[in-house]
Amino acid sequence: MTHKILVLPGDGIGPEIVAEAVKVLNVFTAEGNLSVEMEYANIGGIAYDKEGQPYPDSTRALAQKADAILLGAVGGPQYDALDRPLRPERGLLAIRADLGLFANLRPAILYEELASASTLKPEVVAGLDIMIVRELTGGIYFGQPRGIRVLENGERQGFNSATYTESEIERIARVGFETAMKRNKRLCSVDKANVLEVCELWREIVEKVGKEYPEVELSHMYVDNAAMQLVRAPKQFDVIVTSNLFGDVLSDAAAMLTGSIGMLPSASLNSSACGLYEPIHGSAPDIAGKGIANPLATILSVAMLLRYSLNRPELAERIEAAVKTVLASGVRTGDIYTEGDRKVGTAEMGDAVVAAL
Amino acid sequence: MTHKILVLPGDGIGPEIVAEAVKVLNVFTAEGNLSVEMEYANIGGIAYDKEGQPYPDSTRALAQKADAILLGAVGGPQYDALDRPLRPERGLLAIRADLGLFANLRPAILYEELASASTLKPEVVAGLDIMIVRELTGGIYFGQPRGIRVLENGERQGFNSATYTESEIERIARVGFETAMKRNKRLCSVDKANVLEVCELWREIVEKVGKEYPEVELSHMYVDNAAMQLVRAPKQFDVIVTSNLFGDVLSDAAAMLTGSIGMLPSASLNSSACGLYEPIHGSAPDIAGKGIANPLATILSVAMLLRYSLNRPELAERIEAAVKTVLASGVRTGDIYTEGDRKVGTAEMGDAVVAAL
Ligand SMILES: CC(C)[C@H](C(=O)O)[C@@H](O)C(=O)O
Ligand SMILES: CC(C)[C@H](C(=O)O)[C@@H](O)C(=O)O
Repeated sequence: MTHKILVLPGDGIGPEIVAEAVKVLNVFTAEGNLSVEMEYANIGGIAYDKEGQPYPDSTRALAQKADAILLGAVGGPQYDALDRPLRPERGLLAIRADLGLFANLRPAILYEELASASTLKPEVVAGLDIMIVRELTGGIYFGQPRGIRVLENGERQGFNSATYTESEIERIARVGFETAMKRNKRLCSVDKANVLEVCELWREIVEKVGKEYPEVELSHMYVDNAAMQLVRAPKQFDVIVTSNLFGDVLSDAAAMLTGSIGMLPSASLNSSACGLYEPIHGSAPDIAGKGIANPLATILSVAMLLRYSLNRPELAERIEAAVKTVLASGVRTGDIYTEGDRKVGTAEMGDAVVAAL
Repeated sequence: MTHKILVLPGDGIGPEIVAEAVKVLNVFTAEGNLSVEMEYANIGGIAYDKEGQPYPDSTRALAQKADAILLGAVGGPQYDALDRPLRPERGLLAIRADLGLFANLRPAILYEELASASTLKPEVVAGLDIMIVRELTGGIYFGQPRGIRVLENGERQGFNSATYTESEIERIARVGFETAMKRNKRLCSVDKANVLEVCELWREIVEKVGKEYPEVELSHMYVDNAAMQLVRAPKQFDVIVTSNLFGDVLSDAAAMLTGSIGMLPSASLNSSACGLYEPIHGSAPDIAGKGIANPLATILSVAMLLRYSLNRPELAERIEAAVKTVLASGVRTGDIYTEGDRKVGTAEMGDAVVAAL
């Protein structure tokens, strides 16, 4: 069976880091262990430059046929002056909506070798391994009505709508519980049900779905408290499930606890196992083209791709083990370098992972 | 001139900590340095118990006549089964709306003596002193329409509206700039303008108000990045101004960076300098009535009350200096105790501050 993979290098360091991730995929195909067909397309700023839209129809057509999508990053200062609907990040929002990628899985894992990079005390974050399950196609990101209107008194008012239906909550809750079942069976649902009706419904439905997962210990936390607890005692969490907006904020905070966001992958899945895989760090325009970006988050995104979309967990594990081997050998890109390590560039890091495989 | 102060002890540890803060106020009146008239009323769970509402009319009548309000805390597990509109925290939301307390000032200060309580490395948080200016009577907390409706397909949908008008943004932006002018003249406005129209307007208006404050260095940050930056390098911030919901989350995260939320006060102001002052920690039902709660956040809330509502900065400074003296002497309640300190209860801590005054 040949899998169709769409590669979207995007902007900034995107092309460089994606190239290394593709090298890793090529190891498996060369071994005869995997059959993939790769196509390339544009998204984000480069798509605007070449095709006038951050998510062009040509990309959309390929995305809809793909089994999985590997994305680098989007965005750059040269696009800041564009009208908002044309900006790179709108390409990302559009592909999420278009493919129905409602479940965003964002692990926050602290690699033992990189523990010193965290701004938190070692005992607070050693062994940290949280999975944040963020709803990605609903909530205030996509809710209608929205806009800027003129009120009767002549003033403008900006407005957005945070909405969730029962079925939207149910399906993301299910991903939360299934994820917890494969881990330590603890799920914390984060909401603001003490203030928002949309979260009252969220909590009710999560509770209901929880009845089907008696083995999972379900808890609820308000988002302000969750932000506190991530700083105070992050290891109390196993899996967190939350809305689009709260997930945006909490997953970035959780990622930063590790101190090495150059290491963190993500998966965005729909109901037919098609997924978009990307590192959580951005396009880092300041270091683009210099060959010094860390490709490991993208390489680890390939591991997630193999696990979730191609159903090849054994290949995913090989990548994850190879990354650990490379870290243990002291090879580091600049972002994770400390005195005494061997500093390498993007390509050398990719080669090191290939060698470890 | 006699100032009317309304005291709302509330639930849990509220009455105990408020009693110590009142002791401190009494020092100034005994000295003849201040003339206040104190009245007591109910809010939160105790108000529901005694008067059937978390913000009863009797309290409202007194609040509307007060020059300033000192609040302990609201909430407790015994109220979790109540209908949401009757729960303690709704009392808090109601008094904010009723008095138009649109500007919530939440300092996150790390006391040198308590630096080891932080989960962050000392070099990351030493000297931390951030002021978060949170909009408190608008945004998604109060936006209409809101509720849970049944869609045509029979499914329920929860919905809330995040709204801000130009004038709402303008007045909170102004508080942000004025606050920055009294500090290090750096203001960071936090929004999610890359996704939400309400934040596009927010950013536009903040920019506009900024023209009146050329001395203040204004920057903008997306909320996800702000959550990251608070963990990565919190000392980059001087004043943060943001919406109700983002402020709720970020101010709690910022507070937890200090590791001692038992030390942090807050002020909620309206346009006529009336304010509500409260510690940011909650009602701590687990230790209520034991005489061990830390009253310093409430005592420091009195300092804010003197500064912002009674225009007595010199008395505020005396309280702040007294708290520092007490900390330097090694006197600690349990929450901030470490080996070698002298552990005291709530009343003894209050007495220590009084003595230091
Ligand atoms: C770029 C932006 C629209 C996006 C989001 O808010 O979802 C990003 O922050 C993310 O988390 O993937
Ligand atoms: C209790 C709750 C409604 C309140 C809020 O969300 O504003 C609290 O978290 C706060 O920050 O004062």
